[in-house]
Amino acid sequence: MDYDAVADAFVKHYYNVFDTNRSQLFTLYQNESMLTFEGEKMQGPQNIQAKLSGLPGVTKHAVTTVDCQPSGPSGGLVVFVSGSLRADDDQPLRFSQMFHLMPTQNGSFYVYNDIFRLNYG
Amino acid sequence: MDYDAVADAFVKHYYNVFDTNRSQLFTLYQNESMLTFEGEKMQGPQNIQAKLSGLPGVTKHAVTTVDCQPSGPSGGLVVFVSGSLRADDDQPLRFSQMFHLMPTQNGSFYVYNDIFRLNYG
Repeated sequence: MDYDAVADAFVKHYYNVFDTNRSQLFTLYQNESMLTFEGEKMQGPQNIQAKLSGLPGVTKHAVTTVDCQPSGPSGGLVVFVSGSLRADDDQPLRFSQMFHLMPTQNGSFYVYNDIFRLNYG
Repeated sequence: MDYDAVADAFVKHYYNVFDTNRSQLFTLYQNESMLTFEGEKMQGPQNIQAKLSGLPGVTKHAVTTVDCQPSGPSGGLVVFVSGSLRADDDQPLRFSQMFHLMPTQNGSFYVYNDIFRLNYG
């Protein structure tokens, strides 16, 4: 498997959905999926969607770096993203985010772990 | 298992070894372990140790945030760290780093995935 290609395609898809069709992000998560957003923890597509839908503004993510590695015998991969995030006309903020993607039964991937942090200072 | 306690203890230990006894970092990795350092990929304790030993200066890491989540049926956990890193008397640089820790047979953990990025801009 070409992990880099999977990671690049996922990252492109994820932030495109986030920025243009945010209410559909839940489709990328399953019941055991976890999100830690600026230290706040939630689990499952509904809770994760509620959190992400509640974030203010129209967002625009610009990705700077994407790193990935296979994550072990489960057939997943870890993806580490850095970039900047602009909400409406605010100043862009730098962020880092990691995803642990796991294979689905139909050969696709879903987000098992998702940790997001703004980079201050 | 108290994942937060494991993550906190690991992070404290990892950066303490890095800053005070860097030549022993290889003990935290196994043959399948991967490091991506500023986009450069390497695998295995020897290659990872060679890279980390080659970084210049006496380092001092200061951790700002530690987030963690269980990573699935393998019994591992993902750990996401942000902080700052000072080499000798240089200006401190902000960094983000993620670890995927896997259990060892004796009930400890080793680093399976390690991705490091400086936060520019």
